[in-house]
Amino acid sequence: MGSVALDSIESPSGKRENILGGSATYLSLAASYFSPVNLVSVVGSDFPDSHLEFLRERNIDLKGLIIKEDSKTFRWQGYYEGALNEAHTIKTEVNVLADFKPEIPQEYQDPDYLFLANINPDIQSEVLRQLKKAKFTVCDTMNYWITQKPESIKKVLTKVDAFMLNETELRQFSGEFNLLKAAKKVMGFGPGVVVVKRGDSGAMMFTGNSVFSLPAYPLKTIIDPTGAGDSFGGGFIGYICRQDSTEERILRKAMVYGSAIASFDVGGFGTERLKDLKFEEVEKRYQEFKKLTDF
Amino acid sequence: MGSVALDSIESPSGKRENILGGSATYLSLAASYFSPVNLVSVVGSDFPDSHLEFLRERNIDLKGLIIKEDSKTFRWQGYYEGALNEAHTIKTEVNVLADFKPEIPQEYQDPDYLFLANINPDIQSEVLRQLKKAKFTVCDTMNYWITQKPESIKKVLTKVDAFMLNETELRQFSGEFNLLKAAKKVMGFGPGVVVVKRGDSGAMMFTGNSVFSLPAYPLKTIIDPTGAGDSFGGGFIGYICRQDSTEERILRKAMVYGSAIASFDVGGFGTERLKDLKFEEVEKRYQEFKKLTDF
Repeated sequence: MGSVALDSIESPSGKRENILGGSATYLSLAASYFSPVNLVSVVGSDFPDSHLEFLRERNIDLKGLIIKEDSKTFRWQGYYEGALNEAHTIKTEVNVLADFKPEIPQEYQDPDYLFLANINPDIQSEVLRQLKKAKFTVCDTMNYWITQKPESIKKVLTKVDAFMLNETELRQFSGEFNLLKAAKKVMGFGPGVVVVKRGDSGAMMFTGNSVFSLPAYPLKTIIDPTGAGDSFGGGFIGYICRQDSTEERILRKAMVYGSAIASFDVGGFGTERLKDLKFEEVEKRYQEFKKLTDF
Repeated sequence: MGSVALDSIESPSGKRENILGGSATYLSLAASYFSPVNLVSVVGSDFPDSHLEFLRERNIDLKGLIIKEDSKTFRWQGYYEGALNEAHTIKTEVNVLADFKPEIPQEYQDPDYLFLANINPDIQSEVLRQLKKAKFTVCDTMNYWITQKPESIKKVLTKVDAFMLNETELRQFSGEFNLLKAAKKVMGFGPGVVVVKRGDSGAMMFTGNSVFSLPAYPLKTIIDPTGAGDSFGGGFIGYICRQDSTEERILRKAMVYGSAIASFDVGGFGTERLKDLKFEEVEKRYQEFKKLTDF
């Protein structure tokens, strides 16, 4: 569950207008390498059929995707410059997301694994209310919601197993600069697992009694970082679902698969690179992570 | 070879005045966990005997340390704040380093392993001129020399096997933001190995055909980051010397040992933590790095 969007993006490599985007889109596409996906989101009647077909082809079930007549799809316009490590927003048109009331189809109501991608935390809570408890629930968020609705995020955190966010957001939300202290503080709100996305410094996972740290895959070129974090999240939950286990060793491997898919995602605008990415390439990159980190 | 200094340091954890410091000091102390060390540097007649005794106790040979009468030791005064990721210089008194002409003792002239720690690159060249070629030579530098003497650094690079510097310095020296491109460019000047120190993002090693990336050891508290990079370098060269091998798998393990010692160094002011650090603690931290990175 999360947003499905039409993005207009400019980076030093070029620009694209109204391309497929949104947190739930990247999440679902990445997760679909490992598992069938049920997508919960909303778009407007302006949403191109070709995008729906693309998602369906990837074994992503769209019964939970509301297509709201006479409404416009959520749109984000932004740009990246220099080191591409920060998205600068030019315009956000919330449109159909403004009064999104998720309607969970009957057959989705007892999920094995659930990912609440970045979206208004009150909507995340509403989804949790409509669902039976999954074996493992992850939620993500962003700086905007941390500023606007910190209490709503804390409410969500009482009901999830893992909290995933980037380094800056973790520091902002916890009020602690030190990542160990920040993760510990966040765990106090509920989740037993905190996953921190650190861009070109990789990712870390904190659990009650261990820390896992994975460097980023070194890339010569980044075309467009949009969706890297959500692709990471999708690979993470997808692999966990495929293994049907939340043992620590599985969570660690899941982070590597998430990083592998994210490392491809940034090689094209929007979802372009994920359109032709083969599972064999993901497996190969997993092995490259082994070589990268082995000592 | 490098500097031996008296440092005055202030950090959020407190302050110390005129404590033992300098690139060659940290290098030698860290390397001494693995191998005997021959130190080449210069101090003034104000340098406390107690520091000399401390270094000798650590199996660091001081025949190459000139004690210059009627001169003052190199002094650095600086402070750290906030995230402690940047040293702010208050005052540098070059003193005896200004006209340092290294005199290499006869018995040092055919070294197995050589580390040219951060110092004026013309002095690094002079040391190389006086020595037979070592099996493996590493050199380090800093932003000041990159700005002041880039051509002198390039001259040194034609004669060393590995170049070690921090991420910001690598970008500055190469003019490339991307670390892969930056490392490749630097290799064009001579060294087959480039080691990049990335602070709390860990360290990377680039060779002709591989990349190794190691995350940082997560620490709750940093007292004083002074000497972390040089401790890393000392552990690196010390382990290589002990194994008497420059195979890639040895270089990788050497980076972990370097990181292990650096992770202790920052736990006290100056060399304080290295005074009571036991080799068993270093070995234990090496194993903790295994657990931290295993997937």
